[in-house]
Amino acid sequence: MRFTSHMERALAEARAAALRGEVPVGAVVVAPDGRVVAAAGNRTRELSDPTAHAEILAIREACRAAGSERLPGHDLWVTLEPCAMCAAAISAARIGRLYYGAGDKRMGGVEHGARVFRHPQCHHRPQVYDGLGADQARALLRGFFERRR
Amino acid sequence: MRFTSHMERALAEARAAALRGEVPVGAVVVAPDGRVVAAAGNRTRELSDPTAHAEILAIREACRAAGSERLPGHDLWVTLEPCAMCAAAISAARIGRLYYGAGDKRMGGVEHGARVFRHPQCHHRPQVYDGLGADQARALLRGFFERRR
Repeated sequence: MRFTSHMERALAEARAAALRGEVPVGAVVVAPDGRVVAAAGNRTRELSDPTAHAEILAIREACRAAGSERLPGHDLWVTLEPCAMCAAAISAARIGRLYYGAGDKRMGGVEHGARVFRHPQCHHRPQVYDGLGADQARALLRGFFERRR
Repeated sequence: MRFTSHMERALAEARAAALRGEVPVGAVVVAPDGRVVAAAGNRTRELSDPTAHAEILAIREACRAAGSERLPGHDLWVTLEPCAMCAAAISAARIGRLYYGAGDKRMGGVEHGARVFRHPQCHHRPQVYDGLGADQARALLRGFFERRR
């Protein structure tokens, strides 16, 4: 049930992002002891920062808290398949396990496109678990883009 | 000569990064009117931030200055081939032209590994020019890693 609650928390961050007018993606970083050490939703518009994806903000927050640029043994939960930028950041941060909800054919960089973890230039590969909470993550995104049309 | 001076500036940022104990990579963002709007070197250690590569810091600074998450018509000059994270950030920021110095077989994500710009999931591709100031960029890196051994 703990697992479910981490994805629920990420989904809550995604919903909050949608309310701010941001693409609804949310992420949570969980320390080896099970504590949630960072949670974030997209803020690219609010911050005028193309790198302010949920994953990057959560990783940066967790690193600040840890006082380290590496987060070994930490898990990252995110509602959508990370893009190439976020996948590479996840690798650089040495995240242990990546759990994501919906796959992203259009922007994804884990199972689509750049497939960042599959090259020798990727020096750390997290364990990847996908499909958790995918329907809810997808519904959030669909609703958001339909409202914007 | 203007071109040379932008790479010189990026190399100066790389040298300053080395003096701070950071991997010596430097980057500069140039606005469409030719002004340098951001310059940065790696600060991953100082900031405990695995995303604080020179390119990311320079893009974030330029976006802050522009009040926008996109930098159309802007050029990015960087001493080393960007990694997958930075390449994807360059695409997300809609950078017009990417000039880089040395190729990076070990970590690069433009001409090596993930080749971020070469997938349909990459929705903006900058024009890419490589090899400028490559020898100096490479010598800086070599010196840095030799001193660390």
